[in-house]
Amino acid sequence: MLHLVIMAGGSGTRFWPESRRGRPKQFLTLAGDESLIQQAAHRVRPLIAAEQTWVVTGAGHASETRHQLPEIPTAQVLLEPCARNTAPCLGLAALAVLLQDPDATLLVTPADHLIRPAEQFRQTVAHGAALLDQHPDASVLIGIKPTYPAEGYGYIERGAEFAGGYQVARFREKPNRETAREFLDTGRFYWNSGIFLWKASRLLDLLRQHQPAIVEGLDRLRPAWGTAGWNAALAAEFPRLPSISIDYAVLEPAASQGKVYVIPASFEWDDVGSWQSLPAVLGKDAVGNTTTGPICALDSTGCVIRTTAGHLVATIGLRDCVVVHTPDATLVAPRDDENALRKLVALLEERGLSQYL
Amino acid sequence: MLHLVIMAGGSGTRFWPESRRGRPKQFLTLAGDESLIQQAAHRVRPLIAAEQTWVVTGAGHASETRHQLPEIPTAQVLLEPCARNTAPCLGLAALAVLLQDPDATLLVTPADHLIRPAEQFRQTVAHGAALLDQHPDASVLIGIKPTYPAEGYGYIERGAEFAGGYQVARFREKPNRETAREFLDTGRFYWNSGIFLWKASRLLDLLRQHQPAIVEGLDRLRPAWGTAGWNAALAAEFPRLPSISIDYAVLEPAASQGKVYVIPASFEWDDVGSWQSLPAVLGKDAVGNTTTGPICALDSTGCVIRTTAGHLVATIGLRDCVVVHTPDATLVAPRDDENALRKLVALLEERGLSQYL
Repeated sequence: MLHLVIMAGGSGTRFWPESRRGRPKQFLTLAGDESLIQQAAHRVRPLIAAEQTWVVTGAGHASETRHQLPEIPTAQVLLEPCARNTAPCLGLAALAVLLQDPDATLLVTPADHLIRPAEQFRQTVAHGAALLDQHPDASVLIGIKPTYPAEGYGYIERGAEFAGGYQVARFREKPNRETAREFLDTGRFYWNSGIFLWKASRLLDLLRQHQPAIVEGLDRLRPAWGTAGWNAALAAEFPRLPSISIDYAVLEPAASQGKVYVIPASFEWDDVGSWQSLPAVLGKDAVGNTTTGPICALDSTGCVIRTTAGHLVATIGLRDCVVVHTPDATLVAPRDDENALRKLVALLEERGLSQYL
Repeated sequence: MLHLVIMAGGSGTRFWPESRRGRPKQFLTLAGDESLIQQAAHRVRPLIAAEQTWVVTGAGHASETRHQLPEIPTAQVLLEPCARNTAPCLGLAALAVLLQDPDATLLVTPADHLIRPAEQFRQTVAHGAALLDQHPDASVLIGIKPTYPAEGYGYIERGAEFAGGYQVARFREKPNRETAREFLDTGRFYWNSGIFLWKASRLLDLLRQHQPAIVEGLDRLRPAWGTAGWNAALAAEFPRLPSISIDYAVLEPAASQGKVYVIPASFEWDDVGSWQSLPAVLGKDAVGNTTTGPICALDSTGCVIRTTAGHLVATIGLRDCVVVHTPDATLVAPRDDENALRKLVALLEERGLSQYL
């Protein structure tokens, strides 16, 4: 059976002041009527029901997750006691799912990407699941056709055609602009969306082969599943697992063995990385601003302006700025300077204003 | 006895979003712990008690006035049914005060100026009152020594020395920059602060002489004072009075008769005309910003940033801007562009957002 595993470990403040340490990006409603994690859970229905949906998130986000996704069985919200990157996260998910369904196929997706339309997503997923039905030892990645020479993404180079997709020839992490341009020009490269499909048992096999320390830790955890001792066992074992991404841990070695495939996405994808990504995702109004809530923008353009219901934000003469009002904090900043926002967050900490983070 | 008459008819939105139609500048706490109108009432104590303090304001501001100045007897908050400029305003005040105290001397002051220190203000007032004791038919103005060639103020040119002050030679309204510069260079000009002293009876005499229509209207009102019919009588008579300033109506003609005097102020004065006036009034922090409330300004300078308790405003890379957060509206604008703020206010009206005005 197909299960959805939502990786919701994100903890950033790139959308401060909307995102907070206790409420990172995946819990925000940046586009549409639902938060990104709600969209991640709901876009696969009716392909995957709530009973086959799993979330792996930080222990600090348990209540927000349950609040936003009340339909998911409580035991299927897996709480990491600390962040150990994606390989331990997915190992844990595979362990838990297998104990419920030994023949499970996993659709793994980050919680904080924007994907539209849902029908197209389900179609791509169905294609991947069909490929896995025929080739149970495959790992299937969803590749995004690049639209510009992005330097910030991982790239997948495709090889030979296979079952409506391609073998993965190799992975290339964050290239420089020139290399990214070459990738784009060849037409053979995809962005790595972080969306995967594989059999849960195969994932654990690959981890056992390439990262035995992770599986040994998971094996020690296994007897505690479903018992009152689970949290204590997890708190003891999980922090000792090596912190490594699933790409480095498993996908790259498996690709060199020829068992990793990429399927080009038929949907629109955006990882909504920062305030500056919102105009592309949400569009612009007649004067070039991207706004949410009651706004009056005079002689202002290229701005992202967001506010809460009932609170007016009025701007005069702003260019390419972000103005974000939340109930307890307001940001006015250049739209395209993520580094400055990071510096600001550090400054808030330094000045003893971390109650706003 | 000396009475204080506070002219609180201001209705502007130059401090939007802090100032609103229902809560204009005089009711704002822009500097110090009290609003400007509270400061206007309190800075003359113990020279003038609450029992001798009068406020003339618009009918729409009755409750805010009583809320901010609860110690003033209710009957001494005079409510204009509509704005008719300062001559009818002061005629009304003189009428009411004279009915309580036929020998009253009036200290008239705008409600929305910033004056410091209070001791120096009282000293200047005492000087003016002493002059009036000796010369009951005088009109005494407080003149402000100009600090720059302001184009927006009225100027008073002094004549011969008289009783520690000067006779007023003439009035000059809002000069151009070149003329203002000449005024400054001669050392003989003062800004007209709008702060006056005279006997209430003399004021009515002057009005009777130069603006008989105003005094005729007031005479028709007189019998209703202290009766249940006062508001109805005021609503009938007041709107019919000519709308004219006390300067044009009385002071300029009286000056040509040689009975108007100017006393140079020994206090600091600022009419706090707009957001851009705040740095001069409140000072700047180490990086050049003028802030109120919890602020974190990164790489920002020359800004006026104001917020309410508990609401953080964080800025990055702002230059010479005003950022003002209030519970239901936030402004981000260039600091020095009053015209743009006026345009914004018009735009809010046009867009059906006048609930924020």
